[in-house]
Amino acid sequence: MNIDLNADLAEGYGPWRMGDDTALLDVLSSANLACGFHAGDPLIMQRTVELAMARGVDIGAHVGFPDRQGFGRRVMQIDITELAAIVTYQLGALDGICRARGARMTHMSFHGALGNMVAADHALAAALVRAVATFDPKLILLTSASRAMEAAAHDCGLRAATTFLADRAYDDDGLLVSRKLAGSVIHDRAHVLERVKRILRQGNVVTHSGNTLAMRPASILLHGDTDGAVDLARAIREEVVASGACIVPISRQGCR
Amino acid sequence: MNIDLNADLAEGYGPWRMGDDTALLDVLSSANLACGFHAGDPLIMQRTVELAMARGVDIGAHVGFPDRQGFGRRVMQIDITELAAIVTYQLGALDGICRARGARMTHMSFHGALGNMVAADHALAAALVRAVATFDPKLILLTSASRAMEAAAHDCGLRAATTFLADRAYDDDGLLVSRKLAGSVIHDRAHVLERVKRILRQGNVVTHSGNTLAMRPASILLHGDTDGAVDLARAIREEVVASGACIVPISRQGCR
Amino acid sequence: MNIDLNADLAEGYGPWRMGDDTALLDVLSSANLACGFHAGDPLIMQRTVELAMARGVDIGAHVGFPDRQGFGRRVMQIDITELAAIVTYQLGALDGICRARGARMTHMSFHGALGNMVAADHALAAALVRAVATFDPKLILLTSASRAMEAAAHDCGLRAATTFLADRAYDDDGLLVSRKLAGSVIHDRAHVLERVKRILRQGNVVTHSGNTLAMRPASILLHGDTDGAVDLARAIREEVVASGACIVPISRQGCR
Amino acid sequence: MNIDLNADLAEGYGPWRMGDDTALLDVLSSANLACGFHAGDPLIMQRTVELAMARGVDIGAHVGFPDRQGFGRRVMQIDITELAAIVTYQLGALDGICRARGARMTHMSFHGALGNMVAADHALAAALVRAVATFDPKLILLTSASRAMEAAAHDCGLRAATTFLADRAYDDDGLLVSRKLAGSVIHDRAHVLERVKRILRQGNVVTHSGNTLAMRPASILLHGDTDGAVDLARAIREEVVASGACIVPISRQGCR
Repeated sequence: MNIDLNADLAEGYGPWRMGDDTALLDVLSSANLACGFHAGDPLIMQRTVELAMARGVDIGAHVGFPDRQGFGRRVMQIDITELAAIVTYQLGALDGICRARGARMTHMSFHGALGNMVAADHALAAALVRAVATFDPKLILLTSASRAMEAAAHDCGLRAATTFLADRAYDDDGLLVSRKLAGSVIHDRAHVLERVKRILRQGNVVTHSGNTLAMRPASILLHGDTDGAVDLARAIREEVVASGACIVPISRQGCR
Repeated sequence: MNIDLNADLAEGYGPWRMGDDTALLDVLSSANLACGFHAGDPLIMQRTVELAMARGVDIGAHVGFPDRQGFGRRVMQIDITELAAIVTYQLGALDGICRARGARMTHMSFHGALGNMVAADHALAAALVRAVATFDPKLILLTSASRAMEAAAHDCGLRAATTFLADRAYDDDGLLVSRKLAGSVIHDRAHVLERVKRILRQGNVVTHSGNTLAMRPASILLHGDTDGAVDLARAIREEVVASGACIVPISRQGCR
Repeated sequence: MNIDLNADLAEGYGPWRMGDDTALLDVLSSANLACGFHAGDPLIMQRTVELAMARGVDIGAHVGFPDRQGFGRRVMQIDITELAAIVTYQLGALDGICRARGARMTHMSFHGALGNMVAADHALAAALVRAVATFDPKLILLTSASRAMEAAAHDCGLRAATTFLADRAYDDDGLLVSRKLAGSVIHDRAHVLERVKRILRQGNVVTHSGNTLAMRPASILLHGDTDGAVDLARAIREEVVASGACIVPISRQGCR
Repeated sequence: MNIDLNADLAEGYGPWRMGDDTALLDVLSSANLACGFHAGDPLIMQRTVELAMARGVDIGAHVGFPDRQGFGRRVMQIDITELAAIVTYQLGALDGICRARGARMTHMSFHGALGNMVAADHALAAALVRAVATFDPKLILLTSASRAMEAAAHDCGLRAATTFLADRAYDDDGLLVSRKLAGSVIHDRAHVLERVKRILRQGNVVTHSGNTLAMRPASILLHGDTDGAVDLARAIREEVVASGACIVPISRQGCR
């Protein structure tokens, strides 16, 4: 069994850093880079591209709202046409940096509030995934479980790959439980590792309401932005290896 | 004789506009689009790309400092490595929008204070032109007369095309006279048209000090951001036609 | 009868301008200045303060979302504590510029999407009006008709003054009809002037649904950002004078 | 002998933090808060004001260039009139937050590249200190040793207080040695503490060239933005106490 390990990187801005990208890059097989809207700037993006290339880590675009102060986590009501242009702009910017360094951009994901909105809204998903496909039909869409995103990817002929959030509770539809609800974020390390083991060996997750939901993710999302996050990322990697799975970037996994 | 007519477009931001891009596009053969740093945003850039495509006008990137409030006209001392990344990011962003629309980005130019700095500083020109060539060696560098830029383009194997600023005074080295000096901007319409006629028919310009300087530009820069600017642009176009020159985008002119 | 004429000014940014502030200032008795978040910057604010002072026009703060690209017209879901700090910051910034010039800031209003949200949401209105009152209890709240705002002002001991939007349709609750609906914006000049005459002489407005709604505004909102807007503003002023009303800033009207 | 301990705080932005403000506040007697231009945002400023008030720490404005990406460390050539408006805006914004919380803003300082420029340029210092005095003539100017700043403060009737940078080399004129030069930043902890002891007990500093320069600072600048910085700040505080000095905010020291 092949599984990818991905994380959101390049989420600093100017003098500020978000997490320890360098340490995390040693754990990952895919990196999703902020593209200058919710976070990231040209220099940070370029350096992260160089670091990822040096480790053979896949590079993708992590596209967000134009709201650095809110880190792209605040809902913004932006016209779909403008949002699509915002997506294309960010894809182009990171792709340009990749090409100038001789790297290939393999995938993309939506960040924060935008990610939640496309996962839940078929019309929005259709429009923004169309923008992605128009930009580059070979890009893989990395997404949490979402029928809206899977349908949009299918309609546009894009490959969608599901990522598993080991520390976030799921509802019975496979959507992430809002951070505002108790129990939405799983802080207990042993519990997180247990969920990783379960998703790999049994192909399911226990939902917030206690049901069992089948899920066959292509990737697991790791974090680097809190204390102990890199340690936990390393522990998840060890758990993956112990489960007998191979760590392989999505771009080199067969279609699923 | 072939000559290109170019102007800087897409220099609005959010709700604000700078000049009448739509009117100007009917006069041009090449458009230089702001890329979101000194001006421009994804929606404005996308719409301008669509308008230019509809008229068969060449599309290039007009790259500036990250300073909207100062419209890229203020000197900023930014490390060369970061500046090069800033250039690559902007080229990638516009190129992405062009590719998503099926257009090709043919050229690029530097805006405002950054443009003045690269025209005067060989080391800076070398680094930033290298960034352009690394991004896409087929891009044409559109620049006011500058030995620094021409040398950098030559070293990187890029084609440099000189643009003539009909309303700006030149010094005897062919550099633009600073806007702070009296006589640096030529407001008299007849005088501007006379200079256009002279550059086309005699291949020279009378400098600020009264000397005659040979110049064989591939393009003439038009403006659209002041009252009467579009009218003057139209008059220059008529003068070009009356002089017997053909209006041809640089990308379709032979090398010079 | 006393009536104030107000408009939103200083809504440019860097090199960009929004409307003809100088012309409009000759028509107004109160100016609401953008404070650098949805629009405005320190230099534009300072110059507009100076222009208003020279004409004896009252100066107030026009406070918006931190979203220049969207001009504060897009809904943003920001925590109330942060929004309150954003309000205080903007009030302080303009107040500082006023004090440095020897002017007094007399009033404030909420802009765009934020204005619509406080007009419709009692909890939000309570929190943000509390922030205004904590900053300066003598500030007058300039607002379109809204029970939420009037209740919040009453609870905080602030004076609320209603402004009448002569070119916008009202629903039967006195709230503005969404711009997305047909007939929400009244473009016919004669119709706008008729509404001004009616509100002044009869104290009511015909709503979107055809009912008559009593309204005794302290002020009328004028615009300067579209073609013909300044002319219409002048015509409204003439209509006010013809109706026998005196044009008096709210700060010099008796309480109502 | 009285000495103040100050540091630059509130230098985060949105989700990002710069150093451990809470820990540092326990060491300080004065805090200089970023005002939203080079760093800081309304929420961070408000929280830092509250934290400082709870500890009886003086609050001042730390005013910088409008350049978050460069953290205000890059030279920008901005017209003096605009710079003065930028200073007033930032002072007003922080003052507004202070007043709304019942605090008094006691002092101000210039950040980064702007700080270096005013310290070295008499005309710029005169204009910007004039803006400070016009805003509030009771504000204390906190500055590294600079004849330009001292002269400007004297001309405007402002009190200037010198702060000593224990970890930065001085030249024989008392100006800071550029960070680009070797030896400009002193990393050795024992050396930094030795300099603190010397300035307190002997009233002088050994310059970069080895000379002895008399200096009687009212304050010592501490840092919190690097590993070990808070520890060093605590050690400096202990050294101050051991030297027999009292730690007193500048606003409560007698004039010097």
